[in-house]
Amino acid sequence: MRVVPVRLENRGYEIKIGARLLDRLGGECRRLKLDRACAVITDSHVGPRYGERVMATLRNAGFNPFLIAVPAGETAKSLKTVQACYDLLAKHRLERRSFVLALGGGVVGDLAGFVAATYLRGIPFVQVPTTLLAQVDSSVGGKVGVNLKAGKNLVGAFYQPKLVLCDLDTFTTLPEREFRAGLAEVIKYGIIYDAALFARIERDLPQVLRREQRILAAIVARCCEIKAEVVSQDETESGLRAILNFGHTVGHALEAISHYGKYLHGEAISLGQIAAARLSVRLLGLPPLDLARIERLFRQTGLPVTVTLGDRQKERLLEAMRLDKKVRAGELRFVLAKRIGHAEYGLKVPEATLWKALDSLQLSLSHGRGE
Amino acid sequence: MRVVPVRLENRGYEIKIGARLLDRLGGECRRLKLDRACAVITDSHVGPRYGERVMATLRNAGFNPFLIAVPAGETAKSLKTVQACYDLLAKHRLERRSFVLALGGGVVGDLAGFVAATYLRGIPFVQVPTTLLAQVDSSVGGKVGVNLKAGKNLVGAFYQPKLVLCDLDTFTTLPEREFRAGLAEVIKYGIIYDAALFARIERDLPQVLRREQRILAAIVARCCEIKAEVVSQDETESGLRAILNFGHTVGHALEAISHYGKYLHGEAISLGQIAAARLSVRLLGLPPLDLARIERLFRQTGLPVTVTLGDRQKERLLEAMRLDKKVRAGELRFVLAKRIGHAEYGLKVPEATLWKALDSLQLSLSHGRGE
Repeated sequence: MRVVPVRLENRGYEIKIGARLLDRLGGECRRLKLDRACAVITDSHVGPRYGERVMATLRNAGFNPFLIAVPAGETAKSLKTVQACYDLLAKHRLERRSFVLALGGGVVGDLAGFVAATYLRGIPFVQVPTTLLAQVDSSVGGKVGVNLKAGKNLVGAFYQPKLVLCDLDTFTTLPEREFRAGLAEVIKYGIIYDAALFARIERDLPQVLRREQRILAAIVARCCEIKAEVVSQDETESGLRAILNFGHTVGHALEAISHYGKYLHGEAISLGQIAAARLSVRLLGLPPLDLARIERLFRQTGLPVTVTLGDRQKERLLEAMRLDKKVRAGELRFVLAKRIGHAEYGLKVPEATLWKALDSLQLSLSHGRGE
Repeated sequence: MRVVPVRLENRGYEIKIGARLLDRLGGECRRLKLDRACAVITDSHVGPRYGERVMATLRNAGFNPFLIAVPAGETAKSLKTVQACYDLLAKHRLERRSFVLALGGGVVGDLAGFVAATYLRGIPFVQVPTTLLAQVDSSVGGKVGVNLKAGKNLVGAFYQPKLVLCDLDTFTTLPEREFRAGLAEVIKYGIIYDAALFARIERDLPQVLRREQRILAAIVARCCEIKAEVVSQDETESGLRAILNFGHTVGHALEAISHYGKYLHGEAISLGQIAAARLSVRLLGLPPLDLARIERLFRQTGLPVTVTLGDRQKERLLEAMRLDKKVRAGELRFVLAKRIGHAEYGLKVPEATLWKALDSLQLSLSHGRGE
C-alpha cells in the first residue's frame, strides 16, 4: 500500500493506494475516531457491485451504515439529488460526528462531498473512488459541488475529506470507455507538471491499457502526489491550483452544451486539452513537436481529438465559457502549456483566437475515435 | 460610528454600528476592493423600503448592482429559494470577485450568506442587517444556511462576511413585534455572558422600548462585542460557541413544529430560554431569584413566557429536538445558566426532566402576551 499525505494545516489527510483495500475500509475508518452512524452514498452502477462489501466491512468495524444509491451519470449531480440526500440524512438522524462515505466515481464524490460539506454546516467525509478519474483527480483536493443548468460545478465548496482510499481492484470492472477517459486526467498531469510522467505514459501505454496493477499503482500515486503538492500550496485556487484546470474551460463548456450526456468528463477535457495545446503553440510558444506528441498520445489512448462544430454550436460554447468560474472582469482566462511538463495560468485569450482554435478541432489530419 | 473588530486569522472583518450609515454603504464596499458586479438580496418587506437607497449608494460608488427580492418570512429560507438565487447569479454572470450583499433580517442574511458561500465555491459577502435580531446575532459570526422540512438550519456553512454594517435608523421602521423579538437575543447575551448588560436592560427597559438611539447603539455594540469574542475563540462551534445557543434547542423545535409560521424566532427562543432557565435551576443550581428576574424581564419586554402544549405536541417537540445539530450519540445536550452572566454547554438533560420543564411552561403564575 502506498500512502500519499496531503498537507493542509489542521485539515491534512492521507490518500491510501493499493490492491484489495476495500475490505480494510472499516478498520481504516475506525482509526479516524468517527461516530457510528454513516451514510454510504453510491450510484446505481457501483452500488450493486461494491455496496454490500463496503456495508459489511463498516458493520464489522462497529459502524451503523445505511446506503443511498443515486442514479448513475452526471445528471444526478444536481441540487435535486442533494435535497434528496439531505432528507435521508435527517431521517437517519446523522449527527455532527457521523460521516458521509462516497463510493463511486467523480459524480458521486462531488455530490456526496457537497452534502457532507453543508449538512449541519459540515460533517466528516470519506472518499472511496472507484474510477481512475476519481482516484487521480476528483477525490483529492477538496473541491466538491454540483451543476446548475447554466454550467458545471457552479455551486460547491472547498471541503477536505478525512481519508481517500483507492482500491486498484475496482479498475477490473471499469468499462473500457471510462478507463480511457480517466487517462485524460493522467496525461494532463504530465503536460502541466511532470515531463517524466508524460514520457512514461508514452512508453508504457500498452501495459497501462492492459491495466497492469504494478504500473497503475505507480501512476495513480504520482498523480495524487502532484495534486497534493499543488493543492497544499493553494487550497482555494487563488493562484497555482488553476493549472489543474488545463483543458477544462473548453471541456466544461462542451459538457454543458451537450447537457452532460454525450461526453464523459475525460473525453470532453481530452478535446479541451487539444484546444488548449493549440492555443499554447500560438500564444505561449509551445513547441509544435510537443503539440504533436500530445495529440498522438491522446489519439493512441483512444480519446477524442476532433469534433465538428457548427457556428451556432461554437456560439453556444463561447457563451458557456463566459460563465466559467475562471472568468475575470468578463475576460476568458486560460491555462496554457509552455512545454510538456510546465503550464501557466491566468492567460487572457481573445475570443477571435479561441474561435480559430475551435475551428482547428475539426481539421485534425488524422482521426482517432473522433466524433 | 462604533467599530467592533471580529478577529479571525485571515478572515477577520469589522462590524460598523451607527446612525445614517446606509447611504455610506457604497463607499464602505469600495474599501473592500471588490469587483463591480453585485447581487443585493433582500425581501418583499425590506426591498421596497431601503432597496433603492442601497442600489443608489452602490451605483454612486461605481458598482453595478442588481436586486433579488425573496418573499418575506422564514419559509423563504429554503433550498428552493437558494436555487432561484443561483440561477439569477448565473444569469447576471457573477464572478469570483463579484459579491452578494444581504439587506434585511436574519432570514435574508442566512439565505444570502449560504448562496455566497456556495456559489462558485464561495464569493465575497456583505451583511446589512435591518432588524435588531439580525444586528446583534445572525449577521455576526458566519453561520449561514437554510431550513429543511425536518428542521431549522440543518443545511449551511461557516462563512464569514467581509463587512457588517448596522444602521440604527432601520429600527425606526421595524414593527413593534419584531423589535421586541430582537430583544430576546439581547437578553440572552446578558444571561450567558454579561450580568452588567442584563442589569442595564432591566434598568433602562423603558428607554430601550422607546428605541432611544444612544442606548441602542451601546447595547448593539456590546452584543456584537460578546458575539465576536466568543466566535473568535471558537469559530466552528467545537466548544464555547455553543453557549450562544442558550434557549435555542427548545426554541428551534417550537419553530419547526409550528412550521416557522406562528412564532418569530425571538419569540420562540424567549420560550426556549424560559425552559432552559427552569432546567438550569434544577440541574445547575441557577438561583431561583435569577430565574424570577429572567422571567420578569422577558415578560416586561412583552415576550411570550407561557405556552400550552398537548401531549402530542410535546412528543413532536421532543422529536424535533432529537434532530437538533447539538445532539450527540443520541443524547440531547443543553446550554444552561449557572447564574445570570454565566452559562455552561454540553449538558445532558434526561428526556423525563425535559418533559417536566415543558409542562411548567404552561403553569407560569403570571401571564405576559403568552399564547
